[in-house]
Amino acid sequence: MQKSASASSLGPGGLDLTQAFFKPIQNTAPPSPTKRHTKISVIGVGNVGMAIAQTILTQDLADELSLVDAKADKLRGEMLDLQHAAAFLPRTKINASVDYSVTAGSDLCIVTAGARQNPGESRLNLLRRNVALFSSIIPPLAKYAPDSILLIVSNPVDLLTYVAWKLSGFPSNRVIGSGTNLDSSRFRFLIADHLDVNAQDVQAYIVGEHGDSSVALWSSISVGGVPVLSFLKNQQIAYEKETLENIHKAVIGSAYEVISLKGYTSWAIGYSVASLARSLLRDQRKIHPVSVLAKGFYGINAGDVFLSLPAQLGRGGVLGVTNIHLTDEEVQRLRKSAKTILEYQSQLGL
Amino acid sequence: MQKSASASSLGPGGLDLTQAFFKPIQNTAPPSPTKRHTKISVIGVGNVGMAIAQTILTQDLADELSLVDAKADKLRGEMLDLQHAAAFLPRTKINASVDYSVTAGSDLCIVTAGARQNPGESRLNLLRRNVALFSSIIPPLAKYAPDSILLIVSNPVDLLTYVAWKLSGFPSNRVIGSGTNLDSSRFRFLIADHLDVNAQDVQAYIVGEHGDSSVALWSSISVGGVPVLSFLKNQQIAYEKETLENIHKAVIGSAYEVISLKGYTSWAIGYSVASLARSLLRDQRKIHPVSVLAKGFYGINAGDVFLSLPAQLGRGGVLGVTNIHLTDEEVQRLRKSAKTILEYQSQLGL
Amino acid sequence: MQKSASASSLGPGGLDLTQAFFKPIQNTAPPSPTKRHTKISVIGVGNVGMAIAQTILTQDLADELSLVDAKADKLRGEMLDLQHAAAFLPRTKINASVDYSVTAGSDLCIVTAGARQNPGESRLNLLRRNVALFSSIIPPLAKYAPDSILLIVSNPVDLLTYVAWKLSGFPSNRVIGSGTNLDSSRFRFLIADHLDVNAQDVQAYIVGEHGDSSVALWSSISVGGVPVLSFLKNQQIAYEKETLENIHKAVIGSAYEVISLKGYTSWAIGYSVASLARSLLRDQRKIHPVSVLAKGFYGINAGDVFLSLPAQLGRGGVLGVTNIHLTDEEVQRLRKSAKTILEYQSQLGL
Amino acid sequence: MQKSASASSLGPGGLDLTQAFFKPIQNTAPPSPTKRHTKISVIGVGNVGMAIAQTILTQDLADELSLVDAKADKLRGEMLDLQHAAAFLPRTKINASVDYSVTAGSDLCIVTAGARQNPGESRLNLLRRNVALFSSIIPPLAKYAPDSILLIVSNPVDLLTYVAWKLSGFPSNRVIGSGTNLDSSRFRFLIADHLDVNAQDVQAYIVGEHGDSSVALWSSISVGGVPVLSFLKNQQIAYEKETLENIHKAVIGSAYEVISLKGYTSWAIGYSVASLARSLLRDQRKIHPVSVLAKGFYGINAGDVFLSLPAQLGRGGVLGVTNIHLTDEEVQRLRKSAKTILEYQSQLGL
Repeated sequence: MQKSASASSLGPGGLDLTQAFFKPIQNTAPPSPTKRHTKISVIGVGNVGMAIAQTILTQDLADELSLVDAKADKLRGEMLDLQHAAAFLPRTKINASVDYSVTAGSDLCIVTAGARQNPGESRLNLLRRNVALFSSIIPPLAKYAPDSILLIVSNPVDLLTYVAWKLSGFPSNRVIGSGTNLDSSRFRFLIADHLDVNAQDVQAYIVGEHGDSSVALWSSISVGGVPVLSFLKNQQIAYEKETLENIHKAVIGSAYEVISLKGYTSWAIGYSVASLARSLLRDQRKIHPVSVLAKGFYGINAGDVFLSLPAQLGRGGVLGVTNIHLTDEEVQRLRKSAKTILEYQSQLGL
Repeated sequence: MQKSASASSLGPGGLDLTQAFFKPIQNTAPPSPTKRHTKISVIGVGNVGMAIAQTILTQDLADELSLVDAKADKLRGEMLDLQHAAAFLPRTKINASVDYSVTAGSDLCIVTAGARQNPGESRLNLLRRNVALFSSIIPPLAKYAPDSILLIVSNPVDLLTYVAWKLSGFPSNRVIGSGTNLDSSRFRFLIADHLDVNAQDVQAYIVGEHGDSSVALWSSISVGGVPVLSFLKNQQIAYEKETLENIHKAVIGSAYEVISLKGYTSWAIGYSVASLARSLLRDQRKIHPVSVLAKGFYGINAGDVFLSLPAQLGRGGVLGVTNIHLTDEEVQRLRKSAKTILEYQSQLGL
Repeated sequence: MQKSASASSLGPGGLDLTQAFFKPIQNTAPPSPTKRHTKISVIGVGNVGMAIAQTILTQDLADELSLVDAKADKLRGEMLDLQHAAAFLPRTKINASVDYSVTAGSDLCIVTAGARQNPGESRLNLLRRNVALFSSIIPPLAKYAPDSILLIVSNPVDLLTYVAWKLSGFPSNRVIGSGTNLDSSRFRFLIADHLDVNAQDVQAYIVGEHGDSSVALWSSISVGGVPVLSFLKNQQIAYEKETLENIHKAVIGSAYEVISLKGYTSWAIGYSVASLARSLLRDQRKIHPVSVLAKGFYGINAGDVFLSLPAQLGRGGVLGVTNIHLTDEEVQRLRKSAKTILEYQSQLGL
Repeated sequence: MQKSASASSLGPGGLDLTQAFFKPIQNTAPPSPTKRHTKISVIGVGNVGMAIAQTILTQDLADELSLVDAKADKLRGEMLDLQHAAAFLPRTKINASVDYSVTAGSDLCIVTAGARQNPGESRLNLLRRNVALFSSIIPPLAKYAPDSILLIVSNPVDLLTYVAWKLSGFPSNRVIGSGTNLDSSRFRFLIADHLDVNAQDVQAYIVGEHGDSSVALWSSISVGGVPVLSFLKNQQIAYEKETLENIHKAVIGSAYEVISLKGYTSWAIGYSVASLARSLLRDQRKIHPVSVLAKGFYGINAGDVFLSLPAQLGRGGVLGVTNIHLTDEEVQRLRKSAKTILEYQSQLGL
């Protein structure tokens, strides 16, 4: 970590060793300005923002990490708490400021700021409180980090990703919502837990709107490469459609359950967003269900709406959407979500 | 993660795929009972306990992680929040219970339970509230995990490590306090930040009592292998003793500063304790300043007192204490701390 | 790394610092003998064995690594070359000996010894040279590491895994061949390379005999959770069966291609076996196509034959075989391979 | 890994899924050309080059890895062998070509090409064979990767680093030799092995010329922050100067020993160079003993000579040299090496 405010505690009357300790070699030249490191900014240092920041730090995903929040004290406290771990981690430069200039040149800006979802509160209800907030966040990010990818985590995530897209003026491949990436992980955990397998061997997507109207893609579930529905059919194992719906309901309910038990969610969303950061910045070209501009997919043509679809992510942001087959019923549910969201958007005046 | 309570959400009327999905091979035998995995238990799921648990999980240090706390709701919420990240992490079995039987067979028990240090509160003031608490924690741990290493994080850490040692009946090499491991990291950060070097290249110890009376070992400071005090002398750079003391004061003040800014410390202590867990369980034989039974060192002979000294840690716990040279003044300060702690201990009736 | 032969270079007349440098604390007791670390032995330090050993070391999968080979000089050279990297790696104790006692207490024994596959040589031709060799390897391993898992890499791997099973007297869940784990990775790479996706997003198995008669499971291929054959059907994309066969042929040919180009294969098999070691020793319960006792599966009932099937691996070795659906043609090809292998086995007199 | 030559095995008559499998979203724009990933090129795919390449791949240090060698077959074999491991590793684009255009835009070029050091051959004897080779390597690298850092591993490394500096025309901070980074690791291993501590807790430098005339800096040795020579003095432990020299001789001898035993060194130099790559590309600002332009240090003023000194490495290459105190004897030995090297250089006509 480089020169930070805390270094001032060595002075005044301090001891300046830097000049004495290192001597330059001869015939040097400064590095080319295009030789840059990887910088991530996290906006909002609440439980979600800090779980993301700390996981990014532990997983060594960035050379520089900047934190922004309106609460100066909390912000400085979180920065110092991370900096104090320097001896246990690869070196990462950690900054924090209430001023967005600290995000200058970011490769990825992760926005977590927003009112916390109250127990029982629908995600859509959070909208109005958050749109106003985004008007003060997105334009400065677009100014200071004009080439960055915007990754929106704040809820209701699909609507706020649209808001961020409009306010930033960024091309759509550089504006992404964390969407159902975490819902899908919960889905995979429940299936893996039931079968006592590694959750990384379970492929399963939840797409659509992040929240109660999300769509579980049953036909995409496979375990260790074995498509589960085909397997049941081949094994002549009968099951009730209701059984499958109960698993989906358990996924939807699990976010509410964590909130009612501990007051908020943090760790799982932290890991989920860190996994997106890795795919984006390390150009992994992995497929994640995230909120993207869904216009033109599955007959969603009425307007610009963001919904989670399985998207390939890399250094360029959204590289494409997997052309996955949905049943008619799944398509209908997607379109219904899109219609609902568009109605909300039409009232925002963006 | 294996079968947990959450799996029940698939039933009743659920779909049991496990039997159908895997078939056993012939001529098998169960694995030998001595073939065991690595299990860590964390007692207390407040900010400190969860930062430790999550860092251990991210760094893949355990095959099984058990959480214990008296608050059943908070506990289950934290367990679920970690479990939901299964798809993003190597597989770790995660359990949680208010009952200590969940810690059975642990290799390492990390105790973080305790009243949170209030802004401005001295660590010693926390003692009485915590000794009573330990009487309900340590005996069950000693019963269910009789071969484990106890790692105490709760404050005042030196006194409570003594309390844990007495209550457990464990040999002293298996009872360790996190002590000044974090203070030393903060010391290294401040020096590294000042010189703009990697904190991992800075060697610097703070030993003695964790807190205001800790002792900074100036003669042990080296940067990239260069002893700093000898360097200053060789370069004929004059400095005031006061300057060095200011750096030490900044270290002591930094814990209070974080607490006053964000209300508690969490991330740095999480990384600090995870680094100890790695050295212990992966038999790294690394040297850390941690709280150990200090009787017999540096003329501390009056009683059984725990203080931080540079100790080599491995699978057997404390393997030995580095025979580091202290100045007379440093020895006097150590002895004074020992005397103060012994006076407190004498009033505890253990 | 602990005391090794190389330390003797500090003497005679050397300086014994150990006693002086560390002092024991009081009231200690030795750790419980059941508190053991993870030990891996690699038999054979040729290109394959060393690629495996080095990848295991880099990935920090073991606390102790033992190497065995008949060539004492080569063996010591490889041990020293790994030990010299100590400062760049987490501490792992590295041993090497021509005597199998160095494998005592191993959790996993990886056997790579064997004549190197010559360009164009069929895997089956290697058999006779290797069976005699195994008679000098497996019994000592079974003696010194009676609770270990045997992981056979030497070719022809299916037959030699059977030989190891017979010679060891181990239960079948603790005798595994690396089988088609690497063939499957090559299959996934070719598909991923063609689609420009991350190979970790591609699910695809090659099962059966490792080598020319392996069976590609087309119905199991999915990319990012999308089953490819269903996808083609839904998109009404026609393809020739021959096209698929060409991909499979490319997989089979790629091993021969690497051998003809560089003389042997090493890196990919190193990573492949390290991934198996991780799943086994860290109890990951992941599904890998590896060579297991296949009797009773898919109508293979004539005898004890080892073939690769998708198996769940964990601390207990083979936990079960995924009950994957094969087409009639795939079943016929599996059975044909089994029959061929059994004919060879019947001539070995085991 | 992206489209490589191997993908062509899917065609002709192949199946082009790419267009069908992914669909673009609307309103996208290509990423800014300044948003680039990390690229490393390795020149020479012998044992040393491949150990470096494979370690870099395992440790996930680059987004793109390019290999160059004059032997097209060997080169393609090594590329394919690495690519086949794609399913076990984070995605890295791997290229190989006999044409240097494949190195275009590299951040770091690691040169390992050169005649292998024969058993007993002095490093200096290799010089003439290698200077001619560098004339065909360095100019194309400087052309295709004009902003890269050159890291020279070929022996005699100090002289060839000078040659690379002259041929490239690069500023001196972007031309580095691996120098005594590995010698220092061997030194740390021998001390750690003797004391049974973690080698990462040992600080010890060997500087100067890589090879027989290297200089061990005894005063810089510390273990866990304890300076060893001061420790011996404080403990009144007598030792012969000869004892220390024997340790240094063991370090020098260990490279020759490995070469005589296995024919070459590979693993340790692989880890050593990967550690340099990390410090450079991840801007770690760590201090390593590497070969840098030493003119002006310790009275070396007669000419432009490269020797290993403890240098701070970061994204800009060499950031500075640690102003470490040497004894008069150590300075004399450094100057003597410098003089010897300069005499050789004067005969090269560069």
